[in-house]
Amino acid sequence: MSSNTSLPGPYVLGPNQYGKAECRLVRIERDTPVHAIADLNVSTQLRGDFAAAYADGDNGHVHATDTQKNTVYALARSHGVASPEAFLLLLADHWRAQPWVTGTQMSAEQYAWERIGAGTGGAGHSFARTGRETRTAVVQTDGAETFVLGGLTGLTVLKSTGSEFSGFPRDRFTTLAETDDRILATSVTAWWRYSGTDVDWDAAHTGVRTALVDAFAGTHSLALQQTMHAMGAAAMDAVPEVAEVRISCPNKHHFEVDLSPFELTNGGTVFLAADRPYGLIQATLQRAGVPAEPRAWTAVPAFA
Amino acid sequence: MSSNTSLPGPYVLGPNQYGKAECRLVRIERDTPVHAIADLNVSTQLRGDFAAAYADGDNGHVHATDTQKNTVYALARSHGVASPEAFLLLLADHWRAQPWVTGTQMSAEQYAWERIGAGTGGAGHSFARTGRETRTAVVQTDGAETFVLGGLTGLTVLKSTGSEFSGFPRDRFTTLAETDDRILATSVTAWWRYSGTDVDWDAAHTGVRTALVDAFAGTHSLALQQTMHAMGAAAMDAVPEVAEVRISCPNKHHFEVDLSPFELTNGGTVFLAADRPYGLIQATLQRAGVPAEPRAWTAVPAFA
Amino acid sequence: MSSNTSLPGPYVLGPNQYGKAECRLVRIERDTPVHAIADLNVSTQLRGDFAAAYADGDNGHVHATDTQKNTVYALARSHGVASPEAFLLLLADHWRAQPWVTGTQMSAEQYAWERIGAGTGGAGHSFARTGRETRTAVVQTDGAETFVLGGLTGLTVLKSTGSEFSGFPRDRFTTLAETDDRILATSVTAWWRYSGTDVDWDAAHTGVRTALVDAFAGTHSLALQQTMHAMGAAAMDAVPEVAEVRISCPNKHHFEVDLSPFELTNGGTVFLAADRPYGLIQATLQRAGVPAEPRAWTAVPAFA
Amino acid sequence: MSSNTSLPGPYVLGPNQYGKAECRLVRIERDTPVHAIADLNVSTQLRGDFAAAYADGDNGHVHATDTQKNTVYALARSHGVASPEAFLLLLADHWRAQPWVTGTQMSAEQYAWERIGAGTGGAGHSFARTGRETRTAVVQTDGAETFVLGGLTGLTVLKSTGSEFSGFPRDRFTTLAETDDRILATSVTAWWRYSGTDVDWDAAHTGVRTALVDAFAGTHSLALQQTMHAMGAAAMDAVPEVAEVRISCPNKHHFEVDLSPFELTNGGTVFLAADRPYGLIQATLQRAGVPAEPRAWTAVPAFA
Repeated sequence: MSSNTSLPGPYVLGPNQYGKAECRLVRIERDTPVHAIADLNVSTQLRGDFAAAYADGDNGHVHATDTQKNTVYALARSHGVASPEAFLLLLADHWRAQPWVTGTQMSAEQYAWERIGAGTGGAGHSFARTGRETRTAVVQTDGAETFVLGGLTGLTVLKSTGSEFSGFPRDRFTTLAETDDRILATSVTAWWRYSGTDVDWDAAHTGVRTALVDAFAGTHSLALQQTMHAMGAAAMDAVPEVAEVRISCPNKHHFEVDLSPFELTNGGTVFLAADRPYGLIQATLQRAGVPAEPRAWTAVPAFA
Repeated sequence: MSSNTSLPGPYVLGPNQYGKAECRLVRIERDTPVHAIADLNVSTQLRGDFAAAYADGDNGHVHATDTQKNTVYALARSHGVASPEAFLLLLADHWRAQPWVTGTQMSAEQYAWERIGAGTGGAGHSFARTGRETRTAVVQTDGAETFVLGGLTGLTVLKSTGSEFSGFPRDRFTTLAETDDRILATSVTAWWRYSGTDVDWDAAHTGVRTALVDAFAGTHSLALQQTMHAMGAAAMDAVPEVAEVRISCPNKHHFEVDLSPFELTNGGTVFLAADRPYGLIQATLQRAGVPAEPRAWTAVPAFA
Repeated sequence: MSSNTSLPGPYVLGPNQYGKAECRLVRIERDTPVHAIADLNVSTQLRGDFAAAYADGDNGHVHATDTQKNTVYALARSHGVASPEAFLLLLADHWRAQPWVTGTQMSAEQYAWERIGAGTGGAGHSFARTGRETRTAVVQTDGAETFVLGGLTGLTVLKSTGSEFSGFPRDRFTTLAETDDRILATSVTAWWRYSGTDVDWDAAHTGVRTALVDAFAGTHSLALQQTMHAMGAAAMDAVPEVAEVRISCPNKHHFEVDLSPFELTNGGTVFLAADRPYGLIQATLQRAGVPAEPRAWTAVPAFA
Repeated sequence: MSSNTSLPGPYVLGPNQYGKAECRLVRIERDTPVHAIADLNVSTQLRGDFAAAYADGDNGHVHATDTQKNTVYALARSHGVASPEAFLLLLADHWRAQPWVTGTQMSAEQYAWERIGAGTGGAGHSFARTGRETRTAVVQTDGAETFVLGGLTGLTVLKSTGSEFSGFPRDRFTTLAETDDRILATSVTAWWRYSGTDVDWDAAHTGVRTALVDAFAGTHSLALQQTMHAMGAAAMDAVPEVAEVRISCPNKHHFEVDLSPFELTNGGTVFLAADRPYGLIQATLQRAGVPAEPRAWTAVPAFA
């Protein structure tokens, strides 16, 4: 974020940013009787020459967060919301052009809706929220440079077989039995970095999503790590603009219930889905030869 | 619940119940390579002659809640989970037959999964949680009598037009403008009472769900109340075994943003989705001539 | 709630109510340099002659929920918020006097704040939220009659010894061992009914809260049921205006970890605090000879 | 985290870590009749030579997350939980000594309890959860080096006066009025980096907490940024071992309700506490001349 600045006393101001979080924006396209809906949660963060506010409470450079909120809604009206990435790029371009702003972080969640009421008079304007995973996006700028992350969170997937876990080291605190057949379940959070901004955002998102899901399903898993590698590689195979994938997977344990006290076998049929603790595996998969770009990941609420 | 019992001192024990809440049960059917999954959250509550535990800490009648949990998992193994309603009926029959138990409340949430990985080797055993609304069910018994409720919660639906609100009374605290075009959005919680237990539970659930959704979409709304009436009537029209429907609908306000300070019209395109406060409308729709059955609703976490 | 009304078709409108939920109201008393804060979440629900809205979308009787919200804030200004109970009584009196209203349910949560900054210039107007349990209240009216419930939720208490559980029946699904020393932990939700409205609400609330906590601590527990009985009786002993107490207690299991694989004893020192499943015990304790008053409990989000 | 490693195909493994998250640990000290309780949520993450698990599903280096959980509970028994920081240092020392481990991240939340039941027989072993903010801690190691962060989250504070906001720039999207008297409310998340490990952890935590609260209360605020600067500087003034403070403050807006339609003034007495959107200000305050230490902050779920 912004570089350090002296403050009164023996202290300096280090990295900092500010803005408006969680603007709940619903944009309806209603040019025809068949409406479309974009349902977003938009947050804006500015970086730059804001030290006087910290030092002296001087707000002369502080674009009010209320102004940032107004800007979100006004630009949604004037320019539309073609995709979260496209809308965030628009916001970023607006804010990077303002005085005292040297960097920005624009982020969004998008909630999916599906059409309902086919055959009724409301078919063109009625929707149900799908409840599937949330689509996420982050656009960051550093001066003239722009970085785009796509992502998703809350994609909960499960395999009822085709998952093993064995061969791990045993020490005096190890009690876990090896298994060649377990339930593998996780709730995927993934972020991926695009190598540029000339991308068909919706198609790219769908491509990554499909690749992640199919790789999870299609991989006979010896370790969740191996599955995550397969998922990240599949995403980059599917969408050439993706330079890097970060995946965070809780291992949502499903314990096969011991039914032997009741003179019953289990046979992989009855499980207790546990809440906590859970395994947590987080990894970055990158295209070989592509340089890292840490500025794309600044203050992204993710690991690493 | 159970009738009153004297306790030491000038106090009596009124209605009471106890049991195990939120047994997270995943049942896999794996007799063929194409597995099936039932993912439930099951709670059991017993009513009966348990006053000695309150009066003296005498647990001689108290079937341990741990035993209740074991029973959930054991019966899931021995009898399967054909549907939430069928499984709860099974549990209820088990518990009503135990000594000191005069009534029961068995309840469940069910989470839906869809198949993923078509075309991969994991197609038969890979699933993603849909995230759509949660299916709910309650079975209550009072001696030999049995009552079944089906339900759903978290069905979030929205109409981008086809909703009005006008003609309401105005007093000195009224500032709301009348409107002939607004977004109508709600997250439906519905419960319905079946008139018997000889029901195709999955088909009935689908029938009610479809009726609720289609009625929401197909009704030009003059009031959320009117829409809820249409939804309840449609559910009873569609499924003859449904005697009564209770619906609770938050009115999830979407405020059309005032863009006039920015020299923009809105035209029903840009909305702020608000969190709180929200309207809350709750109503019961009943078949004419069918007697009420309050025992079906005892301690159901719903209104009325 | 309101009595049944015929609707078009073979259906009738059963119990119903509507209003505005979760008005987040902060009231500052600032007549002196030492400010006071009341932080509430207020919901209003009306019952009465609203069938035309369901039948025909005719809102002629529907006091808009927006009007209800305005009324909350306006009355908070004109009359102050002496206590949640007092404020809800005020709201109830306003609404019961309106046309078409035959009954009301006014409810509130209150969040506690404590003063901070003693010795600084901000001592009189600076607060931190305590995070302790939430105070709750419900006022219901049925025509000219008025019912008041006090309550609290989220009071999490724990005893590290002084709790046993034994003597329970054993059947083929019972595996739990008896214990004469366990952790007892719960998160108390309690509601209590006042016998009238001439009450010092804050003093009564404090009296019940103290009685509940001290009875939990002071009772050597043979069963959570016995502890709950002691709590309810103590509350009624302490506050004569309390006619009835309803308590709901999850048994938040703390499992003593088996450390024997690591050649360690445990000795009641190291526990895993489990999330789900949990025991759930719910009971009503009543003064002998006091008649029940179901209308006080209509649509209260509690058991029984 | 760990350095990049080639994987099969044109991909490399970038930063990664794994472990067990959210081990809910309750440790009772019961050597005397006056018990003490430590209530923690502990997560462990390992970094090192784990590429084979990603590449081939070879778990030969993968200390099972189940083993990590066992270690948490066993070390809590053998060594006690003097403070979150001390316990995490103990865990870190255990894990850094294991083969294939080159770095670790140990983290914890701690929940505070207060004694209840004074004057009853349960006074020595009865507790209520305070519900105040959560204490947090992170210990990270990189080879032989060790970094310790203290922290807290959910410290909700409010000033009912003594807060202004004016002098901000106005552009075509600015509608906010300037104010010289508003409610300032926030829920503080703070992290601070200790310069070493020879620290009285509890005293240091208390010192920082007190400094943050008093600075919030005692600062006449011209901007939340200015208040945050005062808070960070006060923390470093109070505790010499603190080298750096990172603070994240949502600006929890309290809107003064416009009561003029009801012919009422407001006068700073009646507010609507809004949920979303909210301002979000995040900043780092550092001691001048102290070098930054990014490895202390790797994968910490915070900004920057």
